[in-house]
Parts: sequence; structure tokens; C-alpha cells
Amino acid sequence: MSERKQHLERLQHLVESQQLSKTLLSELFSNADGFQNQPVDKIPPLVRGKVMATLFYEPSTRTRMSFESAMLRLGGQVITSENARDFSSAIKGETIEDTIRIVDDYADCVVIRHYEEGAAARAAKLSKVPVINAGDGKGQHPTQALLDLYTVQREFGHVDGLRFAMVGDLASGRTVRSLCYLLGKFKDVSVTFVAPDIFRMKEDIKEYLDRHKIRWDEKSAINQVLGDVDVIYLTRVQKERIKPEDLKAYQPVKDNFILNQENLQLVRPEARILHPLPKVDEIALPVEVENKDPRVAYFRQASNGLYARMALLEHLLNK
Amino acid sequence: MSERKQHLERLQHLVESQQLSKTLLSELFSNADGFQNQPVDKIPPLVRGKVMATLFYEPSTRTRMSFESAMLRLGGQVITSENARDFSSAIKGETIEDTIRIVDDYADCVVIRHYEEGAAARAAKLSKVPVINAGDGKGQHPTQALLDLYTVQREFGHVDGLRFAMVGDLASGRTVRSLCYLLGKFKDVSVTFVAPDIFRMKEDIKEYLDRHKIRWDEKSAINQVLGDVDVIYLTRVQKERIKPEDLKAYQPVKDNFILNQENLQLVRPEARILHPLPKVDEIALPVEVENKDPRVAYFRQASNGLYARMALLEHLLNK
Amino acid sequence: MSERKQHLERLQHLVESQQLSKTLLSELFSNADGFQNQPVDKIPPLVRGKVMATLFYEPSTRTRMSFESAMLRLGGQVITSENARDFSSAIKGETIEDTIRIVDDYADCVVIRHYEEGAAARAAKLSKVPVINAGDGKGQHPTQALLDLYTVQREFGHVDGLRFAMVGDLASGRTVRSLCYLLGKFKDVSVTFVAPDIFRMKEDIKEYLDRHKIRWDEKSAINQVLGDVDVIYLTRVQKERIKPEDLKAYQPVKDNFILNQENLQLVRPEARILHPLPKVDEIALPVEVENKDPRVAYFRQASNGLYARMALLEHLLNK
Repeated sequence: MSERKQHLERLQHLVESQQLSKTLLSELFSNADGFQNQPVDKIPPLVRGKVMATLFYEPSTRTRMSFESAMLRLGGQVITSENARDFSSAIKGETIEDTIRIVDDYADCVVIRHYEEGAAARAAKLSKVPVINAGDGKGQHPTQALLDLYTVQREFGHVDGLRFAMVGDLASGRTVRSLCYLLGKFKDVSVTFVAPDIFRMKEDIKEYLDRHKIRWDEKSAINQVLGDVDVIYLTRVQKERIKPEDLKAYQPVKDNFILNQENLQLVRPEARILHPLPKVDEIALPVEVENKDPRVAYFRQASNGLYARMALLEHLLNK
Repeated sequence: MSERKQHLERLQHLVESQQLSKTLLSELFSNADGFQNQPVDKIPPLVRGKVMATLFYEPSTRTRMSFESAMLRLGGQVITSENARDFSSAIKGETIEDTIRIVDDYADCVVIRHYEEGAAARAAKLSKVPVINAGDGKGQHPTQALLDLYTVQREFGHVDGLRFAMVGDLASGRTVRSLCYLLGKFKDVSVTFVAPDIFRMKEDIKEYLDRHKIRWDEKSAINQVLGDVDVIYLTRVQKERIKPEDLKAYQPVKDNFILNQENLQLVRPEARILHPLPKVDEIALPVEVENKDPRVAYFRQASNGLYARMALLEHLLNK
Repeated sequence: MSERKQHLERLQHLVESQQLSKTLLSELFSNADGFQNQPVDKIPPLVRGKVMATLFYEPSTRTRMSFESAMLRLGGQVITSENARDFSSAIKGETIEDTIRIVDDYADCVVIRHYEEGAAARAAKLSKVPVINAGDGKGQHPTQALLDLYTVQREFGHVDGLRFAMVGDLASGRTVRSLCYLLGKFKDVSVTFVAPDIFRMKEDIKEYLDRHKIRWDEKSAINQVLGDVDVIYLTRVQKERIKPEDLKAYQPVKDNFILNQENLQLVRPEARILHPLPKVDEIALPVEVENKDPRVAYFRQASNGLYARMALLEHLLNK
């Protein structure tokens, strides 16, 4: 899809973060703010009578609940599959092409989380109703990028000119990939990738950033960047997606990618710490610090996800 | 239940397709058409304030979502169990009789999919609220038969006089059994069963058809009937329900029961191809053909399921 | 939490049954009666626009459906997790503290069933919205105690002065523990614990009853008490929670804890038989007896659970 077109017309589906133009982002952020500024149970039922289906081929209760709450808050309804692998199991063996041509009659939009890269795109191609990619294997997770950027916008008031650090498993983490695609649309942004050798950011993203004039560099320990950046974006090592030998290689250098009370002191007062969650041991801060320190933004980020998804659903469903 | 009674009074439960009289079918089809003729989000909330429970002792996301969407489209609400085996697990060991006497207080109707033949009938016997059988082992699947026949009615404008072929695993397929029970109510209908020896239609159905003056015969390859019938009803070999030795015996003759681009040319222009879905390799048509050829009716059939179930829920819940 | 405080102010969370004061119980029972006295689909939408999240780390379809139906009957909405272990799995490893700080943005109240004692209390400590404990390991199940006592109140018109027998696995059964805590608030109540040696009620509860001047004693067979008590509270041996050697020791004496048609004759005409359900072989009564004998109260008890939970949700959500 050419970006040009998206400026002029509304989105049919959201499959990859590149589809989100600056104009559209600005509209979605403004609508998300509008939802956020009123009691959630007072939001007008903008999608009343509409039904959203969630097809989750791998479990992700957080993401699913965030979408479902967003739909319900807007006055819509939800049909859910926590266990959509049933559709495509070896026994029954249905293709995603068949599944979407059935489910698009049951619902007015379909949210798909799939273990295969490209699955959401294949579904979008045949679907009569909007398809939202909620994560496709090692592919993308565009609504995560949307809420990440919405959080940056809310915390700083702007995105242009900010310095980002992305830390952790950058090779298999689809959230950092989707976020980089979005950053390519902004001015004077820089990105430092902080990862062990085995988890370094892949070449395609680096080339994309080059093409879009985003400065980037690489470091091998979090302490080398903490004092120099505005946004520290940490990610979990997704043990379920990586090879055992990589996990083994990671153990000795693990501490280089952990944020704790000690190196938190290096972080600038106006900087913000983000994480797509769930987090495990890559953030080792006590609950009291998390609840009080304004630099800890990841729970606000999760909350912003609700409002960003409300704005997206409203955009896709009200035409 | 005697058929007589059902003509005069409303259904309490739907356990087997024989309960659906011609008069009731006609009412349900007409109401389903009514729902189909308006935007789904404009349908009046005919069951507002009512709650449907789905108890699925074996997964069937398609059927469950179809029922749930139907209930929500009518303004009702849904409580769901994707994993109702928890009720009856070896550990907790609750009977269906106990379960229904608990759940009938939580909901205004209960949709049951169970691995045991007769389970829905046992539940209906004790339930204070309507029970709908959504498939019971090798028993029946009456709402599938309802939507199959509704599809035939919509595609042809009538059922009387049509020639049906039923193809595939006719021994364990409860959808073809339920459909045969319904066909027994119509005039001048004929059925050709096309199955390998191991999956032939059982005697009880053949006797039922004889009693109801429905002509039937049997063939051993799909190409022998494709040019002669109006409705080609294909079914999946349900690998999860059949014995390994039967599966082995099936492999060499498998191709005799597959519809592909080549033998599609034998199908009459005004004929229609139906399938309860999910389909696997028994239909080998490219997506483009499926999307364009008017004879391919199985995705319309799935869509009709939504409206047929809306009509049924409205019938059972509004008294 | 001191009981004093709860008399004067509204509950924020419900974590343990001790939090329920007599005043609050009386308010909840009266509201539950109010809901019960009108058609369920005519109840005013007292929590319209509110969303309840259910986080079930171990399956309990009955309890979950009861809460969900209660929320929907009140005009609210529900987001569900049948399989919340995904949050805390070894792979992703999120703490309950993180989970609640995410989910409390998606929902206006959170119902938690967890395999670990104390989990709901930990969640309540950090949650912005009301948390309801729906069972935490061998800890408590306060809404079960609430509905148990509500049933006693409806069947007898009072709780003071009644003689209770609690039968079965009293060591690991959290429902009897939670109920004992509530009984401590009433006058002239007595409790007889009927359990094999391996499943005897633990000392902490006996001491609690002593402190609250509740007379208690112990017996080793159900027939020793059936003629002497007003409420017979039977429980299931929770095979999933006990050690194999205990299960073995239980087999020879099992019959001493079973209610059947023979010893039912010992039960006083005005007595009532309760059970938290699901039941297995500890109650061996035919369906016809269960449906007719007024002493069998356990299905009414399950039904009361819906109304008691409606009253609780209304209390926690409308402030």
C-alpha cells in the first residue's frame, strides 16, 4: 500500500504500522485523548450494534482484553476465541483464507493474533470487514507501535527530535520493529539499539531507517546509553520464540540489559521508561519505585493502549 | 416428541431436527430473511436483557461464534465456555444433569455441544430454560440442518423436487444425518449417497427415508453424480472421530470424493455446492473460483447460519 | 482490616469473608432478594457502562459464569480469561502485581481465582478498582460463604440459633473455612465437623470459633449428626488438591460421609442440605428426590449465588 493513498483515504485494515500516516496518527491520538478525558463509563456508544471478533491463534490475554475492553467501552459487543488454533489444527486443517470468509459474516471487524508472519495480511485480502493485526509471528504488532508512540506523544508532547534507546531481544521482538517503521515518519529522531550479538536488530530495519534519514547506532550494554536518551524502550527476551543455544549464549551477558535501582540513577529526570509488557527480570525495580517515579511510564503505556485501540476501532468501524 | 404436537405449539428445546415441522421451518426461514434484509447493526433488540450460555464440551469455534453473534445481534448477552469439559472432568466428575440444573439459573437459554450422543436430550429433560443441541457426538446437529435447508430454500426458492447428493464420511457425519431427517418432510426429493464402503450411510437413515417416501441410492465416486443433481453436499472426513484402520482404507479411494476444478465442469450451471465447513482437501478449488462461481454456495451457507440461528433464538426466547 | 471500620465504610475489595459485617450482610441479602423478586430481564441496568474482568488462573466454569451472568443482568459488560495462567506462565513469568496494574485499566472491577493462597490480597493491595477473591488456593472463597449464608437466611429466615454440620474434606475445603468465619458473627450457633482423620478441620478455625463463642464438636460419621442439625453442609473431596496417600486412606471410610436415600430418612423435616457444588458421589440421591424433596437446597443455593453476586457487584461498583 502506498503511503500517499492513506493520507487521502480511510484505512480499511491495519496490518502493518507503515500504514499509519502522520495525519492519521494525529487524528487517532486526538480521539484517544478525548476518550481519556472522560469517565470510561460515560463514553458515547459510538459503535453500538457492532460486533468485534477476536481470533487468537496464540494466547495473549493482555492484548485480547485491551481490545475487548476498548470495544465494550465504545458500546460494541465481542465474540472471542482464546484458542483459535482449533480452526487450523492438524485435525481440522482449515486455512486462514477459509476462516476469515466465515468469520467476516459473524462480526463487523476481526482482530487476529497469529503465530505465522503474514497471516493477518492474507486474512485482510479476503475479508469483507476490517482486519486488525494483533501480532503475526515475528512480523508486526502495529497497534503496539500505535500505543507506544501515543505514549511518547502524551509524555513529551511531541515525537520529533527525541532520542530513543531500544533494549533487549531486538531480533525476534516485533514490537520494536513496528515502532521503528513508525519512527521513520518523524524528524530529527535517533535510535540506539542495545542488544547482545545474538539478538541484534535486523538489517531490513536498519536500511529502512537509513532510507528515512533516521540516525541509528548500536551498543552492547544499557549503561552506555541511559544518560543520553529520552525514551528507553525495554523488551522481554521472548524465551518461547528463541533457540535454546541462543538462550544459553544470552545468560552470561544478561546483566548488561537490565534496568535496576542502581543504573536508574543514570536516567535523565525528564526521560521515560517504556516496555510493551509483560516484563520479567529485565526490569528489576521495586513496586514502590514503579508507583512513584515519574520516569516509569510502562503502566501508563498499557493504559494508553486501551484509548489508542478505542480510537482505532472507531476509525475502522464508523465510515 | 410427536410431530403433531410441534405443529400446534412452540418448541421448548431443539434437540433433533425431526422436531422442526414444515410450518415452523417456514416461519424460521421467513424471519431469517427479515434479519438478512437489514444492516446487522440495525436489527431490533428482540431479546434484550436475556442471556445465552454456551457449554462446549468439545471445541467448535465456528459454531460457537455463530450462535454468539446471533444472540448479540438480537440485543442479548452471552456467557461462554470454550472448555466445558472442566464441568465433567474425571477429577470433578459432575453429570450433565447437575450442570444444567445450575446453569439454567444463570442463563435464559443454553447451547450445548457435547462429545456424547444424547447429552443434549438429557439436559433438555431437566432444564428450566430452552436447550439447543449444537452437536452431540455421532448424534445430531439440528441447527446445521436448519441452516443447510435454509440455504437450499434461498438458492432455489423451494426444496420440493430437488435432487441431493451427499458425499464423504456419511457414517460418522451428524450433519448429513440431521439433514436427511429434515428432507423426509418434503415432496419428490431424492438423495444419492456417495461414500467409500467404510463410510456408507447407516441403515436407520435409509429406513427413515423409505418410510417418508424419499428415493435414495448409493454411488462410490463423486463423478457419477455431479451432472445429475441440484445440491452437492460435501462433508469432511472427520479424522478425529474415525478409527485409524478406516483412515488407512480411505486413502487409496480418497480422490473419488474430491471436488476440483476439473470435475466442477460436470456440475450443472444451476446446481449448488454446499459444505458444513470446515473443509480440508475434499474441495480443491482456488480462491478465485470460490469467490466468483455462483455454484459455490458454502460461504453463503455459513453466513445463512447466523440468520437462521437468530430466527431460532428469537423463537425459543420470545414466548 | 478491622471489623469496626467496615461497619462505617463501604468495602473497597472482597478478599476474605471476615470483611463482611452483619450490617453489610443484611444489606446484601436484602438487595439480593430485590433482584430475585423480579424477572431477570427486567432488572434495572445499575452498572451500565461498567466492565468486569474475570482472571481465572485455574478453571471454574460454574463460578465464572455465575459472576458473568450477575454482571450482565445488572447491565454491565464482561471481559474474560478462562486461562489466565498465560499471564504467569513459566515462559512469560509476569507477577500478579504487574498483571493487576495492567488489568485495572481495562476493567472497573476484577474477579480473581488463583491457585496460590494470598494472591487476591496481593492484587487488591495495588488495584485501582475493586478486586473480588473467587477462591485462592487453600485460602478463602468469600462469595461462596456469602451465598451459603444467604441461602440459610432465605430457607430459615434467620441464622442465629441454628445447628450446622459440615461434612467431608474440611482440611483443604476453602468454602467451609470461609463459612466458619462468617458464622463467627452470629449468636447461639453450633457447628459439628464430620470428617475422616486425614481431612479434619484445622486448628486455626477451631480457635477462631472459640474466640467468637461458637460451640463446635467433631464426629467421624455423617449418621451420628443427621438427626440433630438444621443445616447439613456437604463438600466434595477435592481430589485435585490432596495427596495420593490421603486419597488411599480415605477409601475405606468413604461411606461414612455419604448422604443417600437411606440415611436421608434421618434428616429432620425442616432441615436443609447444602453443597457448594460440583458434587460427585458424596450425595447419592436420585434426580426425582432432588427435584421434589424440600430439604434438598443445593440447587436453590447455586441459584442464590447469582443474586448474592449481583448484590455484591452493585455494592462495589456504585459508590
